[in-house]
Parts: sequence; structure tokens; C-alpha cells
Amino acid sequence: MTTYSAPLRDISFVLHELLDIGQFGHTAPFEAATPTVVDAILKGAAKLCEQVLFPINRSGDEEGCHFENGVVRTPSGFQDAYRTFTDGGWTSLACDPAFGGQGLPEVLNFALAEMACSSNLAIYTYPALSHAAYTLISAHGSDEIKRAFLPRLVDGRWSSTMCLTEPQCGTDLGLIGTKAQPEPDGSYKLSGTKIFISGGDHDLTENIVHLVLARLPEAPPGTKGLSLFLVPKFMLNPDGSLGPRNGVSCGSIEKKMGIKASVTCVMNFDDATGYLIGKKRGGLRCMLTMMNIARLTVGVQGLGLAETAYQSARAYARERLQGRAITGAQYPDRPADPIIVHPDVRRMLLTMKAYNEGARALAYWVALRVDLSRHHPDPEARQEAEDLVQLMTPVVKSFFTDYGFEVTNLGLQIFGGHGYIREHGMEQLVRDARIGQLYEGTNGIQ
Amino acid sequence: MTTYSAPLRDISFVLHELLDIGQFGHTAPFEAATPTVVDAILKGAAKLCEQVLFPINRSGDEEGCHFENGVVRTPSGFQDAYRTFTDGGWTSLACDPAFGGQGLPEVLNFALAEMACSSNLAIYTYPALSHAAYTLISAHGSDEIKRAFLPRLVDGRWSSTMCLTEPQCGTDLGLIGTKAQPEPDGSYKLSGTKIFISGGDHDLTENIVHLVLARLPEAPPGTKGLSLFLVPKFMLNPDGSLGPRNGVSCGSIEKKMGIKASVTCVMNFDDATGYLIGKKRGGLRCMLTMMNIARLTVGVQGLGLAETAYQSARAYARERLQGRAITGAQYPDRPADPIIVHPDVRRMLLTMKAYNEGARALAYWVALRVDLSRHHPDPEARQEAEDLVQLMTPVVKSFFTDYGFEVTNLGLQIFGGHGYIREHGMEQLVRDARIGQLYEGTNGIQ
Repeated sequence: MTTYSAPLRDISFVLHELLDIGQFGHTAPFEAATPTVVDAILKGAAKLCEQVLFPINRSGDEEGCHFENGVVRTPSGFQDAYRTFTDGGWTSLACDPAFGGQGLPEVLNFALAEMACSSNLAIYTYPALSHAAYTLISAHGSDEIKRAFLPRLVDGRWSSTMCLTEPQCGTDLGLIGTKAQPEPDGSYKLSGTKIFISGGDHDLTENIVHLVLARLPEAPPGTKGLSLFLVPKFMLNPDGSLGPRNGVSCGSIEKKMGIKASVTCVMNFDDATGYLIGKKRGGLRCMLTMMNIARLTVGVQGLGLAETAYQSARAYARERLQGRAITGAQYPDRPADPIIVHPDVRRMLLTMKAYNEGARALAYWVALRVDLSRHHPDPEARQEAEDLVQLMTPVVKSFFTDYGFEVTNLGLQIFGGHGYIREHGMEQLVRDARIGQLYEGTNGIQ
Repeated sequence: MTTYSAPLRDISFVLHELLDIGQFGHTAPFEAATPTVVDAILKGAAKLCEQVLFPINRSGDEEGCHFENGVVRTPSGFQDAYRTFTDGGWTSLACDPAFGGQGLPEVLNFALAEMACSSNLAIYTYPALSHAAYTLISAHGSDEIKRAFLPRLVDGRWSSTMCLTEPQCGTDLGLIGTKAQPEPDGSYKLSGTKIFISGGDHDLTENIVHLVLARLPEAPPGTKGLSLFLVPKFMLNPDGSLGPRNGVSCGSIEKKMGIKASVTCVMNFDDATGYLIGKKRGGLRCMLTMMNIARLTVGVQGLGLAETAYQSARAYARERLQGRAITGAQYPDRPADPIIVHPDVRRMLLTMKAYNEGARALAYWVALRVDLSRHHPDPEARQEAEDLVQLMTPVVKSFFTDYGFEVTNLGLQIFGGHGYIREHGMEQLVRDARIGQLYEGTNGIQ
């Protein structure tokens, strides 16, 4: 069976001893992030991940999502787990206090992301997308949009999606055909079909905020003609409460290789009301704000899954008795030695461990630069941090997901034939890891 | 979608031009294998694989095997397809005419194996195991056993299994605990539990012949204490017809990552009647005869799956329009160029193609040596061929399955996000390929 215990000592080592985040106490989000606070948060996140998210990871994979009468239902236990996640304030960790956030550093959110992806990647895709949308709207939304949508994305009562892909376009976003028609009231009517929309419909949140790339009338062809629109599932009443359904609906859901509890939808926009985000024909630039944070998170997914693969394989290698050590029986009183004595098993375990520890250090180093790029008092330091984030984002996304797939496969291999049996959970890690090399841009075009 | 057209020109090139099998006309199985006969057989095999096995590959994966009231049922269409396979004489290709075989070379059987694994690995595991059992019984069975069992394994009306693994032992066969008790009539009563038994029970054949490693009373510990027994599902009447059920039954079936239509059983032996094969305490040596041919076949599974991945990815890369060639639009009249113009896609396709062509040449070269090791008139030439087969068997098994997993993953990658969707079939190739690195000995202990 898979096993997961959050590697708090390793995480704490990277944050405090390697990165010494205490040195950034002069930068806003780190002011409150004293060692005591950080460690309390890490412990809380670990408890949530180990006790709430991890136990429904296998069952979520076996059950998958349901689609009936146009409505998506997540697997058993996901609603409760998501509520525990939001009730604990875990969606608001690195968000602006002006919108209900805790104003803590993004690097702490990455530690949470790692643990959540180790425990249950599928459920974490929902809040992860919301946080990426929060980042986009914070950067490019009007004050009105921010006031209307950010508080609910921060507290997790609403979630979000990225609507880019269409049947005829994935990598080549210039082929997007979804249309947006201006309305007299300043809003737009969107029509078109988007596919591969993670979290396009589900039962975890009251509302879903779609961020949609579409083309205004007479927009030039290619990516330069794309504008970005916010399209809520439910319209908002003037008081901010939920109004009638908007013209966006889920047409079907995909049967996938993995992350089966993370729903992937075909979304139909039929004269759906949307609100422009950023400038007309500046849609892709805005969307990149969301994609960049999402790409870093996808990289961390590779790390998270690899950590669980490592811990599970290590535990199995200590228990499973097969053969004798080449230097002679280590446990002569048992029928055989645990397989961890064998050099090839140790090679695999140490490869996994080395990758994971290196990846964690690098991921958090980059996440720290995300914080500094936003909050460092010195503009030059902000720019330098931003440049480093830009440089490292594709590296984290592609390298971490490639190695994540490799490491989860090593974990499966250590289980031998048992790794191929679903109930042991190792093959799910492999299947779940495989998506990371594909979404948020295939690794070949990072 | 996946697509498969048997690469007859490539196969024919390896057999006739590269290996020049015509030069071995003086060696029994090649006498009848004139170019005309060989090409007719290849064409027939291609038709069977493309038209009968391939169309039920996806559905077999989705449906999987059923286990109800102790009985295994294969997915819809598998019974008919298997009957077509046996009616066409495809189980008897490389078998001894004395037992109803066609006496053709093993290397032709490998060509069939490649095409069958390309089309539907799961269904091919059943006859592949029977052929490996045929090889074992031919080499080590008594004349009585051969007469009783070989004709039905040759014509495919019965199938076979290899019963080695137990809950406490996989790699370390010395831990086998299944017991065999001698009976006054010269038979044995076997008791114990075997796991991971491919084809342990199913509805494709009238009888199943289990080849079981077990321990006689007072046998020494370790692998030297193992003897090999043949345990039929149904006992045979003196006239060879099927008698009562023997004391062997399927306790449960595994839910696996892939090859879902190839059933994997827990088999319980309760005083099951068995017949000794080979010498007492010489069981492992006999079983290695079966394992060695099975290991080569598993290697060919990697090649087969990789070929389908290549053909499917190539077809998709020619159709899928995304982006423009770096040298300028190749198809200015279309909205975008087919992705095969992109260097990274070509790199992946050519990597796949290079692996496949090299693997095919090597696999058939080794298979030819299997024929020569058995039939070459010169004993020294037989020994040399045998030595080469021994040397290359672990290479073919482990390298081909490692590369098969890599190539099927490259195929999935070329499909982008669509590769992750089950209906396109690419992810099934990956899941099916993953078992090859595990069974018949994990690649780490080849």
C-alpha cells in the first residue's frame, strides 16, 4: 500500500536553513511568517493532507467523477474533504488580506501544494486552479471584478477554470475560435466550445469562475487577436449573491488515464455573459499570469507524487522479504532479507530520494522568488526575482514532471508485480504523474 | 485513435534479406518455410491481427475480465477471437507435427507474436503461455504426458499457466511453500496458494494445464527443493476426454493497471492431482525452459506495443494541425501545419522508429537461434546457438520492455492531452507495456 507522512523536517530544513526565509522579514508576506507560525502552518497542512486528503485518494481514483443530466459529481468524500480544506483557510494562505487572505508567503503555499499533491493530486487540482485564477484576477482584473470575485476564490466557496483548449487547438492557441460579442452594458456574450477544462463543472463549490480566451469581432487572427473574459457559472446579483445560471454548461466529461477524481470537461458557451479582463486583444498576456503560476504548481505535482512513491517504496522495501544480501544473510532468523538490502533496490530508492530532495530545494527557491518578485521593497530586486522565475518556470514544469513520472515508475518497480495491482496504489501514482508532462503546455513546448 | 497495419515489408526484410532464413533450408523447420510459404503465413497473420484481434483491444481493456461464482469470463468478443485464432492453426505454427503442429520455424512464430502483441497484447497472453508450456512439456515431459497434453495445447483447445509466485515469494522462488504429496498411483496431491497466475481461469479453452512448482516432503529448502508438476483443471479420462474437476480453483482475480483482458488469478490448490514433470527436485531447471521462451515473448511484447504506438503517433502527427514549421508554413492553405513538421515531434517519431526496427532485427535474430539450437544438424552449431539464446534472452526481455515503455510514452506524448484520454487508446499501450518490466522476472533481476 502507499504510505505518506509529510516530510516536515525536510521541508523545514529547506525553508529555514537552506533558504533562510527569516532574512526576508522586511518583505510584507514574511513579516508574519515567523518560524513558529511557519512550523505551525506546516504541521496543520501535514495533518490535513495525511488525515483528510490521503485517505480518499485511492477511492477517488476507483470511483472517478460522475456526469448525469449535465451535472458533475465528484467521488464520495470529496465534498467533505474540500470543505475541511476551505474551512481550515488553506485556500487563503498566500492571498491578499484585502480580499480575506492570510497574506502569507507563496513559498508556504508551495509547501502546502507539495503535501497536497503527495496526498491526493486530484482533489488539489480544484483549489490549485482557483489560486492561479486568483493570481490572474489580482494582476489584471478591474477593482469591480476583484471585489466581486476574489473574496469567494480566496475562501474557496467558488472555484475557477482556465478555458484555452478547443478541439482544433491545444498548443497553437492562435487557432482559438470561441467568439465574444460586445453588449451595450459593457459585458460580452461568449459562444464556442472548450475542451479539457479541469474543474469545468463539479459539486465542490457554489460557483465556478471560468477564465476564457476568445476572439472579439474583427480581431486579428492568431494569438494577438485573443481577449480574456471572466464567465461565471452563476450570474451575480447586485448584492453579490448568486443569480441565475449563465449560458455555460458541461457537455461531457473525459475518461482519463489518471487524476480520475479531477474532472475534465467539455464546456459549451452559448451566449454566456462574460466580463473583459485586461485589455482587448491582450488576453494571452493576462492568461500567462495564470499559466505561469499553474506551471510551477504542475512541477510541484511531480515532486509531490514522487515523494509518496519514495516513501511507499521505502516502506515496502523494508518489509518485503526476498533473497539474501550479497554479503550474507542480514536477518538469518527470517526466511529472507528485506529487499532494501539489494543494491539495485537501494539504487532506485536513492535515485528517488536524491531527485526529491533536490526538487524540493529548487521548487521552494523559485517560489520564494515569486514572493520577492511581488513584494520586495527594492524594484530592482523585484525585477531580478521576476526574471529568475521566468527562467525557471519551464524548467520546474518540465523537469519535475519528467522526473516525477520516472520516480513514480521506480516506486512501482520496487513493488514488483504488486506495483501493477491497483489496490496497492503505486500504479495510480504513475498514471496521475503522466498528466504533468502534458497539461499546462506539453513538456516539448515549455 | 490507435491504428495498426502489420509492417509486413519490414518483417519480410528482416526474415529474407537480413537473416536470409532461406540459407537454413537443411534444418528441419526451414525446409517447408519457402519464401512463398513464409509470405503467405505473414499475410495471414497480419489479417488475423488487424481484423480480429485489434478491433477488440480497446473494448477488452474497458470491460476487463469478470469473476463470478468462482468462474472467470473474458471480455466480449474474446471467445470468438480466440476461436478464430485456433481455427486458423495459429497456435500450432512452430509445434512438432508429431503432436499436430505445423513444424515451422519459431522465428515465424515470433513474427506472429509481434503482430499479435501490436494488436491485442491481452488476448495473446493466453496462447503465448500455452506455447511456452508446450516447449516445457516437449523438453521435459514423459511420453505419456506428451501424448495426453501436447495435442490439445498445440490445437489451442486447452491452455496453460505458469504457477510460481506465492504471496510470500516472487523473485525468491526458494520460499515457495506449495506442497506435493506422493500418491500410491504415482501421481501427487498438491496443496497451496499461487498468486499472479496469468490465465489461471477463463472461458477460452476447455481445459487449463497448470505447471506448478511445489515442494515434496523432506525436500531441502531453497530452489533446489522444488519439483515441477502438471495439474490439469479437469482430470482426463483414460480415453483422453475430460473427466471431473481437479482440486484447483480460482479464488479471486486482480484489478490491474493494464492488460485487463488478460486475467490474473489467485489459484488455490486443495489436494489437486498433479503429475511430476522431469526429475524430483529438478523443477526449477524444467521451469526455466518455459520461462526462457516466455521471457523472449515478453520482450517481443515491448516491440509489438511500441510498433502500434509508432504507427498511431505517426498517423496523428500527419493529421493534427498545430503551429507552423520553423522554416515557414508548409500548408499555407490550411489553418496550421501538421505537427509532423515540428523537429521535436520528428525526434520522437524517429526515436520510436529506430528502436522498433532495431528491436525487430534483434528479436528475430535471437528467435532464429532458438530454431538452430533445436534443429541444426551440427551439435556444435546447436550449442553455439543455444549459448547465444541464453546470452540474449535477458537482454531482449529487459531492454525491449524498458524501451517499449519509453516508446509507448513517446507515442502518448505526441498525442498531447488527447493521449491521456482513454478513448484514443494511446494510454492503454503505456499501461499494457508497463507489465513487461515486471513479469517473467523484474528487469532488475534479469
